[in-house]
Amino acid sequence: MSSHHIVRDDQEPALIIANGASCSIELMGQLLEWSPYVIVLDSAMDRVLELGVKVDVLLGDFDRDFDSGSYKDSQYPLEIIHTPDQDKTDLEKAFDFLIEKGHQAVNVIWATGKRADHTITNITNIVRYRNSLKIVILDDHSKIFLLPQKFQKWYPKNTPLSLIPIGKVSGIHSQNLFYPLKDDELTIGYRTGSSNHTTEDGIVVIEHQQGDLLLMECWD
Amino acid sequence: MSSHHIVRDDQEPALIIANGASCSIELMGQLLEWSPYVIVLDSAMDRVLELGVKVDVLLGDFDRDFDSGSYKDSQYPLEIIHTPDQDKTDLEKAFDFLIEKGHQAVNVIWATGKRADHTITNITNIVRYRNSLKIVILDDHSKIFLLPQKFQKWYPKNTPLSLIPIGKVSGIHSQNLFYPLKDDELTIGYRTGSSNHTTEDGIVVIEHQQGDLLLMECWD
Repeated sequence: MSSHHIVRDDQEPALIIANGASCSIELMGQLLEWSPYVIVLDSAMDRVLELGVKVDVLLGDFDRDFDSGSYKDSQYPLEIIHTPDQDKTDLEKAFDFLIEKGHQAVNVIWATGKRADHTITNITNIVRYRNSLKIVILDDHSKIFLLPQKFQKWYPKNTPLSLIPIGKVSGIHSQNLFYPLKDDELTIGYRTGSSNHTTEDGIVVIEHQQGDLLLMECWD
Repeated sequence: MSSHHIVRDDQEPALIIANGASCSIELMGQLLEWSPYVIVLDSAMDRVLELGVKVDVLLGDFDRDFDSGSYKDSQYPLEIIHTPDQDKTDLEKAFDFLIEKGHQAVNVIWATGKRADHTITNITNIVRYRNSLKIVILDDHSKIFLLPQKFQKWYPKNTPLSLIPIGKVSGIHSQNLFYPLKDDELTIGYRTGSSNHTTEDGIVVIEHQQGDLLLMECWD
């Protein structure tokens, strides 16, 4: 899908392919269109290669009897990074690797679906990268990212938007949302802003004072 | 799958079939084996009926041009509950309905997958029912429930167990987990106890002092 025979300046978001449920070929194709730097996590490699994707980095703890070396020739040049540290998930290690290499943004696919523990950990752990990496998680039904303290973006009328607080988030104000927020507080498990939507074609503004607030653009 | 021609004492957990991704026929069959009281949420009804399941209650806001009355004959007796309140999700309304009817426990399927906002809201919102309903969310890779302050259960060696704090959880102690917790604190987004596992065949003990802690038994 991706020829990779071009010069890249690392300003284009990298692409991490994690080890959850596969997404549609269409979504993957869109994200590969600009030949991003591609990191694949652990045993997802087999599924990725079946799709004919050129991979730049294979990263993982390879703890499941996995022969990472077998890809060296077919994917040349391929960087293989063995990360046995069990204090972090493979996805976090991939974020750390990108930050160290100077990348500023990344799209992540296959990070949801299958195991619920991986899904919830992958989604919520992006908040700790607030100041170091712009992360967007995508699947066939969702686009997920952390909001800056003031967020503004144009959306069509009736776009479904969900505000998910990771912990407690306070001082939330919104413009152009059907269920408006005015100095509101949201708390995970108790009061979330799921299943809101835009009132009109136009700019949506979401501000918050404290805490980590995810925006999810989702569709059925 | 479920004949329902038996007397039930409502001690058996009810079954809610939500509107996310379908699970395997095997999992659904296991949960239907003892003829639970079955609630289906909104437009999941079409998918459920294709599987030949007898439904007791159809609950939803039916806001998508949905003719709930069309099922009255084929599913007789079927209770149809229209819940237009937009402050709660259909799943929360189903929990409230069961509590009001005196049920004490419920299994939930089809509550994960598809939209990430629904998945994370469905999983995390069970914490507010701590004192009113015993809730277990199941899918093909996960079994999720809220831990009491002292939890004990027998597991085989190497069973994957993930501790997911909904907010901040403190004073956590564990026995028979590979990554032990000793007066530990876990915080969603920053420090979770995902991807732990049992050390030996035997009783696992997990205690915590404060906060809402989910246990996820997950498998690939």
